[in-house]
Amino acid sequence: MNKKIGNYTYELSSPVHIIASGAFVGEKEGLGPCGDYFNNIAASDLMGENTFEKAERKFFETALKETLASARLKVTDLSYIIGGDILNQLVSINYTARDYSLALVGLYGACSTMSESLAVGAIMVSSGVGDIVACITGSHFSAAERQYRNPLEFGNQRQTYSQWTATGAGCSVIARYGEGPKITRICFGKVTDYGISDIANMGAAMAPAAFETLKTFFSDTGTDPDDYDLIATGDLGKLGADILRDLLAQDGIKLGSNYMDCGHSLFREEQKTFQGGSGAGCSAVVFNTYIMEKLKQKEFKKVLLVATGALMSTTVNQQGETIPCVAHLVQIEN
Amino acid sequence: MNKKIGNYTYELSSPVHIIASGAFVGEKEGLGPCGDYFNNIAASDLMGENTFEKAERKFFETALKETLASARLKVTDLSYIIGGDILNQLVSINYTARDYSLALVGLYGACSTMSESLAVGAIMVSSGVGDIVACITGSHFSAAERQYRNPLEFGNQRQTYSQWTATGAGCSVIARYGEGPKITRICFGKVTDYGISDIANMGAAMAPAAFETLKTFFSDTGTDPDDYDLIATGDLGKLGADILRDLLAQDGIKLGSNYMDCGHSLFREEQKTFQGGSGAGCSAVVFNTYIMEKLKQKEFKKVLLVATGALMSTTVNQQGETIPCVAHLVQIEN
Repeated sequence: MNKKIGNYTYELSSPVHIIASGAFVGEKEGLGPCGDYFNNIAASDLMGENTFEKAERKFFETALKETLASARLKVTDLSYIIGGDILNQLVSINYTARDYSLALVGLYGACSTMSESLAVGAIMVSSGVGDIVACITGSHFSAAERQYRNPLEFGNQRQTYSQWTATGAGCSVIARYGEGPKITRICFGKVTDYGISDIANMGAAMAPAAFETLKTFFSDTGTDPDDYDLIATGDLGKLGADILRDLLAQDGIKLGSNYMDCGHSLFREEQKTFQGGSGAGCSAVVFNTYIMEKLKQKEFKKVLLVATGALMSTTVNQQGETIPCVAHLVQIEN
Repeated sequence: MNKKIGNYTYELSSPVHIIASGAFVGEKEGLGPCGDYFNNIAASDLMGENTFEKAERKFFETALKETLASARLKVTDLSYIIGGDILNQLVSINYTARDYSLALVGLYGACSTMSESLAVGAIMVSSGVGDIVACITGSHFSAAERQYRNPLEFGNQRQTYSQWTATGAGCSVIARYGEGPKITRICFGKVTDYGISDIANMGAAMAPAAFETLKTFFSDTGTDPDDYDLIATGDLGKLGADILRDLLAQDGIKLGSNYMDCGHSLFREEQKTFQGGSGAGCSAVVFNTYIMEKLKQKEFKKVLLVATGALMSTTVNQQGETIPCVAHLVQIEN
């Protein structure tokens, strides 16, 4: 039986191993600060397809295949895949599951899907439901822009407080046995909404969700930020990360130099993405390459991954609604 | 540790109880064959709101509140809610979680969400992750029509093989302790696509997914349809249910009079919905009223709920793609 710690945090009685991890990213992402950690970079964001949506699926399929290959596993070794994406009806993961004839546990947590899938997947695998399971998510800049904001052909100016949806997919393969960093603790986030309605201002919308989850987790576990080698939020971007620092500081919790945001770390300033990366692929590709590499090398021993999701809908946004957000936390240890 | 049976079926070592269940439905649904089992029927499908999307959320909130009240529970007794809906970005459950300040595990399985949430929720609660948890899903005819097909104002003729998205939401409250029918076995479905691309022909698209899951489950468990008091698919409608019977018969599996489809059972023929109901709300409202009532009265002792989901996207459908489908199975016993 897993142990409840405090009010909202759970400790797995049998931790689950991340036995393989990998990512497949777009060209622009490959030129960013994490570029050296990306083994697989696409030659073209269209991946030989004629639509961005079909291209996004290719990123999923390639990330899944390459990650499995790195652990000498085949698609048929998987009990099921778990995850989702930010396209309507999760077309990328649905069609990936269809093309490989896989059972699917579909999740929707917008850009928080990487930690949501690691959390739900670890609970299921730990309890015996599934032997080897792939947690997968991703996003595509051009597909996301036309679904959530404007088609690229519209040529709108981007706001200086905006972020750039990551093109790429990341995959973690988890199992009860084997080698690799372990998922030990989990905290599902409350849906939080501080009243932001601007769909370009994702960092400000999501920072309060990360704040609520981290505050709850530190309180539940009696720990503070210094107890971890790394605290990584998903895709708050520079502005959102600054807001998170401020919100936590008001509560007496100080984030030090062991704090990073995957979105802020995905692009260089001269790449003109303004606040950095976003999208479900953002934390997925940074976690499954850079962070996992440092965990495997034991440079990091204890990491908190807090992927953040803006659960925004263009339909209800146009009906005057603000943007609810969520942040799910997983603790990974080596 | 939960036990794996065959290749894809899992038996919970500690079954989880459904301690309360309920639904809130629209006026048309209230006039259907299950009407006597619906305690809560809306006076208007708009629920006093000015958009169908906001109305759908009211159905979710009312179903949740009324179900909790029936067990003398409060929203604050919940560890989290788990489920989703068929609107883009799951706006109904996201905003429900926001309005009640709840932690959310968001799922996407289209119309299979009721059994997906019971399956994932039961695994999590059984393992100690969550004490009292609400599984919730639903749909709204008018919101679904304008998102997936045409706005009502367009006034298109409906095909005779089409179905009518249910307006309503259903909720199951689950816990490790307490009284009520138990979730004992789970089988997550493979994403299945037999090549249907007509978004009005959901029954034909989804029947193969139900076929694959039931065939797998019967083979894994060494059982046949006669071993159950009821086998209920989600929303295949009359046509889809007939296709499912045919597909199983070709494999030597005979569905008898203990088989029903929630969609086929939701409306009367004179209500002109053609093949019956569909939508995530369809199996949600029938399961949480009629089926649960019969389980509680011990008229049914062993039930298979196989909610079915057409994971269709208007975007990739217009790009020439066919419709992938999924069906998740939960076994409930009293």
